[in-house]
Amino acid sequence: MSINLANSKKTREDKYPSRISDKPAIVERADPVVYSTWKSGSPLTQEQFRFYDRNGYLFLDQFFSGEEVADWRSELKKLQQHYGQREAEHVIREPGGTEVRSIFAVHEHNERFKELSANKRLTAIINELLGSQTYIHQSRINFKPGFTGKEFYWHSDFETWHVEDGMPSMRALSCSIALEDNFHFNGPLMVVPGSHKKFVSCVGQTPDDHFKQSLRRQEYGVPDDGSLARLVGEGGIETIVGGIGSIVLFDCNIMHGSNSNITPLPRSNVFMVYNSVENALEKPYSGQAPRPNYIAARG
Amino acid sequence: MSINLANSKKTREDKYPSRISDKPAIVERADPVVYSTWKSGSPLTQEQFRFYDRNGYLFLDQFFSGEEVADWRSELKKLQQHYGQREAEHVIREPGGTEVRSIFAVHEHNERFKELSANKRLTAIINELLGSQTYIHQSRINFKPGFTGKEFYWHSDFETWHVEDGMPSMRALSCSIALEDNFHFNGPLMVVPGSHKKFVSCVGQTPDDHFKQSLRRQEYGVPDDGSLARLVGEGGIETIVGGIGSIVLFDCNIMHGSNSNITPLPRSNVFMVYNSVENALEKPYSGQAPRPNYIAARG
Repeated sequence: MSINLANSKKTREDKYPSRISDKPAIVERADPVVYSTWKSGSPLTQEQFRFYDRNGYLFLDQFFSGEEVADWRSELKKLQQHYGQREAEHVIREPGGTEVRSIFAVHEHNERFKELSANKRLTAIINELLGSQTYIHQSRINFKPGFTGKEFYWHSDFETWHVEDGMPSMRALSCSIALEDNFHFNGPLMVVPGSHKKFVSCVGQTPDDHFKQSLRRQEYGVPDDGSLARLVGEGGIETIVGGIGSIVLFDCNIMHGSNSNITPLPRSNVFMVYNSVENALEKPYSGQAPRPNYIAARG
Repeated sequence: MSINLANSKKTREDKYPSRISDKPAIVERADPVVYSTWKSGSPLTQEQFRFYDRNGYLFLDQFFSGEEVADWRSELKKLQQHYGQREAEHVIREPGGTEVRSIFAVHEHNERFKELSANKRLTAIINELLGSQTYIHQSRINFKPGFTGKEFYWHSDFETWHVEDGMPSMRALSCSIALEDNFHFNGPLMVVPGSHKKFVSCVGQTPDDHFKQSLRRQEYGVPDDGSLARLVGEGGIETIVGGIGSIVLFDCNIMHGSNSNITPLPRSNVFMVYNSVENALEKPYSGQAPRPNYIAARG
């Protein structure tokens, strides 16, 4: 209740305060979802535009071809092998294990994924939704191995990006690219449709330098049970299942998560987070030191 | 490798050796699945009979009425409250937590569930499938709470009942009754169709008295990754989703499990295990002391 409020950085307006109070709250989104008006010739249909605006996500089946994905999959295997034995700060392992859970900043460290991040068909859609040029705020590969894939608890990405990285407004989105088939049973992405229009202000303080742990297991910026139940009561839960090469675009503030995966079928996805160039990062709203560049790109 | 083989109890024939070798193995089922021949007037259709025989499970939607289930649900709430504060050997809590995960022997300790276990429409089907009179080998309520419901890893019930309880043959089945809606996303039962026709002989020894832990988190009698992948490769995975009052019957040897449940929607089910009176328990095949009566009923 103390250090943040006493912090001089707090003179700035904060549209989405979080981790400040000891009571959770739900506040209305103060930003648009879609930053442009649909016109004919747009890379999305008007219906898709509206769906994304209303629900906060959009699934596009078979967006990438089998050949494209085969290429990324072989790259992914190489990376997994490479980092299996090698420590690197942008490589995150399973909680309580040594298996690679995520590799960050693949758009910087890997030529193939750099190309993917700049894919013209993809960025045309994203730049239109966000109404400006965009850049990669964060990229990563998530490995959800078979047998032992751990859950990702519910969260709004924006809550963390705002509090810990200083992202001022909700003008970013994620693109998840399925490098393996996503079934109902292998821990697919679950979203709460419509939840992107509410901001859940979370309880508690963030300790310094906690990100090293939080990428393995979420402890701060976790929505409370009551708020989650309310959002799900209003919007339900949608499970995103789709074959290799499908993509899902989802708003930075949509509540999402995934259950564990005990099946033998792994589920690996590439995530690219695009942020509007007009929404560049500022100092973190927590008043703390910013997280490293491989998690939240600056300048 | 030693204590079991040296054990005098090993003179008995063991159709399904497990936890003896340090190499896993898959052996063919040596018992029938269905112990009677379908005839007109049977409580199941011939198609249902065949489905159960081939796949090892049978889903029956809306088997119980809303009123029946409402009654059991209110009973369940009372039990959960009752045991929330009270210790009892037949009440199992979440790993690393205090929440009630399972209550065993509800057919003995609770009048309502005793009635349910003897339900005539249900036992008519079960006695026909198992070709004899049956008795309750084990009963329990499983609470899979919202937000924090833990996974149940893959297992064959029979493997444990054979090794630890001395069930000689595969002539038992479980009935799971949905007291809440089962969705794809709240950690529903997953089965591997056809896996009931193979027995996965598991690796390792069972320590004495380990059952107190194993009911919370499985460590012994766990199938190896290779065998699981093979079974799933052959049979796939079926997720059992269905509304309140639906039931699923599944063979004692079908490979099954469930993922975690981070959704706000709890998933509670009653399990009743029926064993043929002609398949009464003997001494455990591990040569160890039998587990308590509330887990495995004896004469």
